[in-house]
Amino acid sequence: MAAGGPRRCRRLEGEAARAALANADTLLFDCDGVLWRGEAAVSGAAEALERLAAAGKRLCYVTNNSGRTRAAYTEKLRRLGFPPAEPRHIFSSAFCAARYLRQALPPGAAAYVLGSAALAAELEAVGIPHLGTGPAALPGPAPADWVQAPLEPAVRAVLVGFDEHFSYAKLCQALRYLLRGGPECLLVGTNRDHRLPLEGGAGIPGTGCLVKAVETAAQREAFIVGKPNRFMFDCVAQEFPVDPARTIMVGDRLDTDILMGNSCGLTTLLTLTGVTALDEVRGHQDSGCPARHSLVPDFYVDSIADLLPALGQ
Amino acid sequence: MAAGGPRRCRRLEGEAARAALANADTLLFDCDGVLWRGEAAVSGAAEALERLAAAGKRLCYVTNNSGRTRAAYTEKLRRLGFPPAEPRHIFSSAFCAARYLRQALPPGAAAYVLGSAALAAELEAVGIPHLGTGPAALPGPAPADWVQAPLEPAVRAVLVGFDEHFSYAKLCQALRYLLRGGPECLLVGTNRDHRLPLEGGAGIPGTGCLVKAVETAAQREAFIVGKPNRFMFDCVAQEFPVDPARTIMVGDRLDTDILMGNSCGLTTLLTLTGVTALDEVRGHQDSGCPARHSLVPDFYVDSIADLLPALGQ
Repeated sequence: MAAGGPRRCRRLEGEAARAALANADTLLFDCDGVLWRGEAAVSGAAEALERLAAAGKRLCYVTNNSGRTRAAYTEKLRRLGFPPAEPRHIFSSAFCAARYLRQALPPGAAAYVLGSAALAAELEAVGIPHLGTGPAALPGPAPADWVQAPLEPAVRAVLVGFDEHFSYAKLCQALRYLLRGGPECLLVGTNRDHRLPLEGGAGIPGTGCLVKAVETAAQREAFIVGKPNRFMFDCVAQEFPVDPARTIMVGDRLDTDILMGNSCGLTTLLTLTGVTALDEVRGHQDSGCPARHSLVPDFYVDSIADLLPALGQ
Repeated sequence: MAAGGPRRCRRLEGEAARAALANADTLLFDCDGVLWRGEAAVSGAAEALERLAAAGKRLCYVTNNSGRTRAAYTEKLRRLGFPPAEPRHIFSSAFCAARYLRQALPPGAAAYVLGSAALAAELEAVGIPHLGTGPAALPGPAPADWVQAPLEPAVRAVLVGFDEHFSYAKLCQALRYLLRGGPECLLVGTNRDHRLPLEGGAGIPGTGCLVKAVETAAQREAFIVGKPNRFMFDCVAQEFPVDPARTIMVGDRLDTDILMGNSCGLTTLLTLTGVTALDEVRGHQDSGCPARHSLVPDFYVDSIADLLPALGQ
């Protein structure tokens, strides 16, 4: 989008808003902090999406959250009053991880999963066997026992998503699969988000912490399917005929949503209903540092409800 | 030790061995991979240490392992036939972490510990309250529950050591203490070893993986008491009048033992009974890279039993 010098972030309003929306045929929405916070829809967001849908725009949802299935996302959109979506419009890191493994693994190969039941369900939906999720205990009192537990011969990938049952026992088993398989055993992470914000300003450790633990043990880098990696956009582009020049990425995080959008040549729109304050954008913009310029969105709004005037009646 | 160009690693033998040992009044030994592997003493190692002790050398033991108390180390030395040692000759990362917190924490402040019972015992030995060790469960099914569990008001430090009970629940609680306290809450790690080698070539995830997970969640760097940080040598120097120019650091790892020894101006001796092969030394030596030169030891031996001829009868 930007041309002639570093990108400058402008408020999206008035004629510029009408022009940007008229030019777009696809909008990609991050969910948490953009459409809703927890179980509360952002005020006016549902109406904005209704009008976009009525204007014939394609609406897709791209989220690093690996804790829900595509079906659960369509149900949440419905429950909070957003326009109906089909599972094929949902691009979660759980779905994208399953799609990546489906492409990269030989037939019959299985995955060792650190993650939620939803992540496992997305693997099952594309026919990838896995060893289950949930709590795991060390197989004995001494380190010598820990490296004696049986390994499943079919495992050819370790997949790390958000896992509230993450434990040393799982870390140990993940390392054993990675050492047994060497480079032949894939190491895949759903995302690198270091923290998940909760309502009221609290935060809990994100998937990025768990990915780092496994990467440190194995001394190799995971392939990350989630934002800011362009793989998630490529999943959208495999499903729908999207033209980057006519696509807007809407998100609340600079280092995931906006960075991916900018890297893929999309128009990027920051909404301030999530984790980012405008000062951070200005800091990057004025940094004189090319890497930080890639975190600057083309536009910002206080809330996506601010798009309503440009969408007419 | 080295002067005039990058350090070149030579085999320690013959006259050079006699001269180096005659010049030394203190030797610092890493333990695992140097004196023993698991429960088996390195052949000839006990006799070499006997002769060093008989020659009036001060022998100290510096280990990143946080899973044993100082008393347990003296007992293991005795059991495997090494010369008698007192607890004050043992500098484990558990002991050094307790000493660090004793210096850095205000009186009455407590630590939240991810680690072993031995780490907790070292804290108790210096009078630092802690919240216990062992398994911990999440305090409810939903993320909102996880950030509601009570926090102990006195906690002013999070200490991360080797913890086979490491879990998402503990990571979450550690983050909560670090966010509550801000920079006032210390974050301390015993070491960054990414893997612990076991007999037979297997390896299990090391403390470094757990430290990385906590650092990633908190987005801050831990203070590491173990090698290669010079803090461990400073602990020795607080206990004994050691002259770096007359001290030899003996270890099997370049990035911990040798790097610390070189940084502190000690003579460094690599033994090949542990995790390092001589090719790695040559790779660093020939790299032309100053940072990698600091990983090159002054000397190497196949085993510390090779010191026997230089120690006479």
